[in-house]
Amino acid sequence: MASINEVAKQFTDYYYNTFDTNRKGLQPVYREHSILTWEGQEFRGAENIFEKLESLPFQRVQHKVTTLDAQPSNPSINSLLVLVTGLLLVDDESNPMQFTQSFQLIPDGESYWVYNDVFRLNYG
Amino acid sequence: MASINEVAKQFTDYYYNTFDTNRKGLQPVYREHSILTWEGQEFRGAENIFEKLESLPFQRVQHKVTTLDAQPSNPSINSLLVLVTGLLLVDDESNPMQFTQSFQLIPDGESYWVYNDVFRLNYG
Repeated sequence: MASINEVAKQFTDYYYNTFDTNRKGLQPVYREHSILTWEGQEFRGAENIFEKLESLPFQRVQHKVTTLDAQPSNPSINSLLVLVTGLLLVDDESNPMQFTQSFQLIPDGESYWVYNDVFRLNYG
Repeated sequence: MASINEVAKQFTDYYYNTFDTNRKGLQPVYREHSILTWEGQEFRGAENIFEKLESLPFQRVQHKVTTLDAQPSNPSINSLLVLVTGLLLVDDESNPMQFTQSFQLIPDGESYWVYNDVFRLNYG
């Protein structure tokens, strides 16, 4: 069985690669009870979350993970809390922005879905 | 009943005020099953966590919360996921450092304890 750090790495590799190359492909990671807080604004349910992600006002984006930490988030199921800090570059900008994103991932068979997702840009 | 955002605000006000004025006072917020990941290093259990916090190599510290987001983290209990971004200033430094901290808080009667705690400094 993959360690919690391996699961977190596989998930974030998949998540940011999909975000950057085919945003539509993210839909399956969210479910009915998923919650996204994006820059302080809350969205509940896969459909609302996906609509928000699709509406983000940039054409191209590139995420680079700087730090990645994971912990078990529940003693009874193999869910995990993941904290990412990183840099992102949008469209023709040459200065990357710092971001922070925290997920809670819930296992379902061999895969995981996102129950909690909180995203923030870090301004200096 | 306090809203989840009020709980998160009360907790972080208490946590950072205690951290900055009387670090010993933080001991009760951690329990046997608590987990702290501090700059990538993991500590389990109240005793190990508290020993780490006590050993941090600064005399004075001041946290300032920039953003605070909270979400319910479990459909069956009133636990919550909290994401903080902020600035901290240690000892005689005049330049604050950016930090990110993610908590999962578990209710116990009228109060909450910290099950998950992940702390990272954000380097530019």
